[in-house]
Amino acid sequence: MSTSRSNAIIAQSGGPTSVINQSLVGCLESIRVHAKIDRVFGARHGVRGMMRDDLLDLTDIPHDRLERFASTPSAALGSTRDKPDQAACARILETLRRREIGVFFYIGGNDSADTCRIVDEMARAEGYDLRCFHIPKTIDNDLMHNDHTPGFGSAARFVAHAFQGDDLDNAALPGIKINVVMGRNAGFLTASSALARRDDRAGPHLIYVPERIFDPEDFVEDVERVYAKLGRCLVAVSEGIKDRAGNAITAMMADTREHDAHGNIQLSGTGVLGDFLAERLRQDLVRAGHRAPRVRADTFGYVQRTFYDVSPVDRDEARAVGEQAAMRAIAGRASGSITIQRLSTDPYRVEYGLVPLAEVAALTRTMDAAFLDPERPDVTAAFIRYAEPLVGTLARVERFT
Amino acid sequence: MSTSRSNAIIAQSGGPTSVINQSLVGCLESIRVHAKIDRVFGARHGVRGMMRDDLLDLTDIPHDRLERFASTPSAALGSTRDKPDQAACARILETLRRREIGVFFYIGGNDSADTCRIVDEMARAEGYDLRCFHIPKTIDNDLMHNDHTPGFGSAARFVAHAFQGDDLDNAALPGIKINVVMGRNAGFLTASSALARRDDRAGPHLIYVPERIFDPEDFVEDVERVYAKLGRCLVAVSEGIKDRAGNAITAMMADTREHDAHGNIQLSGTGVLGDFLAERLRQDLVRAGHRAPRVRADTFGYVQRTFYDVSPVDRDEARAVGEQAAMRAIAGRASGSITIQRLSTDPYRVEYGLVPLAEVAALTRTMDAAFLDPERPDVTAAFIRYAEPLVGTLARVERFT
Repeated sequence: MSTSRSNAIIAQSGGPTSVINQSLVGCLESIRVHAKIDRVFGARHGVRGMMRDDLLDLTDIPHDRLERFASTPSAALGSTRDKPDQAACARILETLRRREIGVFFYIGGNDSADTCRIVDEMARAEGYDLRCFHIPKTIDNDLMHNDHTPGFGSAARFVAHAFQGDDLDNAALPGIKINVVMGRNAGFLTASSALARRDDRAGPHLIYVPERIFDPEDFVEDVERVYAKLGRCLVAVSEGIKDRAGNAITAMMADTREHDAHGNIQLSGTGVLGDFLAERLRQDLVRAGHRAPRVRADTFGYVQRTFYDVSPVDRDEARAVGEQAAMRAIAGRASGSITIQRLSTDPYRVEYGLVPLAEVAALTRTMDAAFLDPERPDVTAAFIRYAEPLVGTLARVERFT
Repeated sequence: MSTSRSNAIIAQSGGPTSVINQSLVGCLESIRVHAKIDRVFGARHGVRGMMRDDLLDLTDIPHDRLERFASTPSAALGSTRDKPDQAACARILETLRRREIGVFFYIGGNDSADTCRIVDEMARAEGYDLRCFHIPKTIDNDLMHNDHTPGFGSAARFVAHAFQGDDLDNAALPGIKINVVMGRNAGFLTASSALARRDDRAGPHLIYVPERIFDPEDFVEDVERVYAKLGRCLVAVSEGIKDRAGNAITAMMADTREHDAHGNIQLSGTGVLGDFLAERLRQDLVRAGHRAPRVRADTFGYVQRTFYDVSPVDRDEARAVGEQAAMRAIAGRASGSITIQRLSTDPYRVEYGLVPLAEVAALTRTMDAAFLDPERPDVTAAFIRYAEPLVGTLARVERFT
């Protein structure tokens, strides 16, 4: 180690994923194999554990137990949405000094990258020799400088399988069905519902993402058009859809919703958006002369980010970004955020990189215009090609035509 | 065939399951192997297709395509919640005559068994030689004379896996989390969430089923007790929970909900119950002095009944009940409903039977008292032993203590 202190700390932050522990284990195993760091501590609940010196010594966990952690969903060390202020930073620094920590690994999304940047700058300001590595993780797939992010593929796999089954359900008992999918500002996860389609009549028939203005009147018209043609309609809606002024539709309906320390409003863990859209459709369709249309809404919820059935590519890449961070730390590299860039789709190949923390911190990548159909609320073939290798092979289904 | 007519018809009804097509294929393949029935028709959307003569000829579908149907979730022929009245029965009889059908197989739950009984009685009253076989299917697991029903094990498997991941999520980002599970009058599916528990601190910590009166004040007290002890609380709530007067809590909140032809009120496809309970908890806990508790609610929705990852035992038994119905029809047995009885749990063994349609039709089996903890909102070890073989081996998880 080129650092003056011989220990490292690793922590997890933000919304859990099904593969975030792969990154933890990848980082830890690489450090153990290369044996240039004395002790590796795990902070409970991210920076919160660092503030309180609530740490676990991970150095000697047996390999087979680590592997069981790796395949366990959610953040094994616990997570947090805390953003450290100056007082918190001072306490974190105390812990780092006491534990003789020279390297900090933080596994998380863009808010966590921002926390990593804050700790990095605080240490520098205090003249404390610390290097900070952000290890990417988010089901939202919204980190800058990344082709995609660990956690997304597995969440998208759940969404695609859920839509595959629900489309068959909707065909069996026809009606209008809305499924609300996670995603605050980026529509990648909602868009992944399109992977469920196997023929022209299969749903989702309409896909609404936060990158496009959501107009309730257009929405009703879109649904009515599909419903008139097919006698049914399956709709994918992102929880983060916004009106013309950029306000989240959910936020308009529920003024009691909570905000976290990063200023994000609560969108998940409620069925209010789906119920609102279903009721709106019900009323407008009856007004338009349809007789009691069967309208249902489900909100997929947290199961999207912690389901056990992971994408193989996602699992392997989540492991790899942890390993990459460890190797760069051991090689003496300066602080930064690990990235994934795609070299080719066929065959599928990626390479890993490192960019300054500030280039990822608190920034959001949204869907490329090339991924969104310019005419209709739908994705393009380019998006399908992009997402398929990340999600893996889906269950095969058969239907009567 | 001991019937004067040489053809058969098969149809699917009620809420789809992940294995209902196994029953379709089991029945069809048995008929084809034994070759005593000339043509087998499939009715589109249950009795609705029989009324309209909207049939598919299933007799010559290649074996490998049939196997792909078998592993496809949801009802391949389409489903319905229609209950035939006298006029509908007359039209069904017309179709049966025209198509020279002597045997009718209906795959469904207790409402479908009732439809089967109605068609059977109508044919007898008209002097038409017809035998009707009800093939059991329901994720609710609520048919009389059955130890359990095909469809339940796979839905319970989804619920258990979803709770397993969500409990780890709740431990990572502590708070109060409510998950609403399907089940109108029987709590089996909600109870299956208990299979997710692997240690004393794991959730779900509270399980509310329709068999027990739901008192909102007790509910708040229960949650507060767990929350005070563990700093978090994961709750499983059946969509069918009822108050002291027997009214569904959901029904009280939403007077616009629809009823189907069997008189069942709409409970699924809305997040209103979860949101109501979450808001109630939020308010009462703040009033009790807790500072802004993090309360979230998810409603699992239709994905529970159409997810692709099925229980092996459930898959095999769903196939078997279809085969059993075919064999009994071929053997000339009178109309009835196929049942599953358990012979032993270790080793797991079942036998199949046939009971009169009226003994299953429109009746509901609820959870045995032995499955419910008399003191707390929870299930017993006896329920876990009962459910485990039906659900299959779950993913293994690891956690820090």
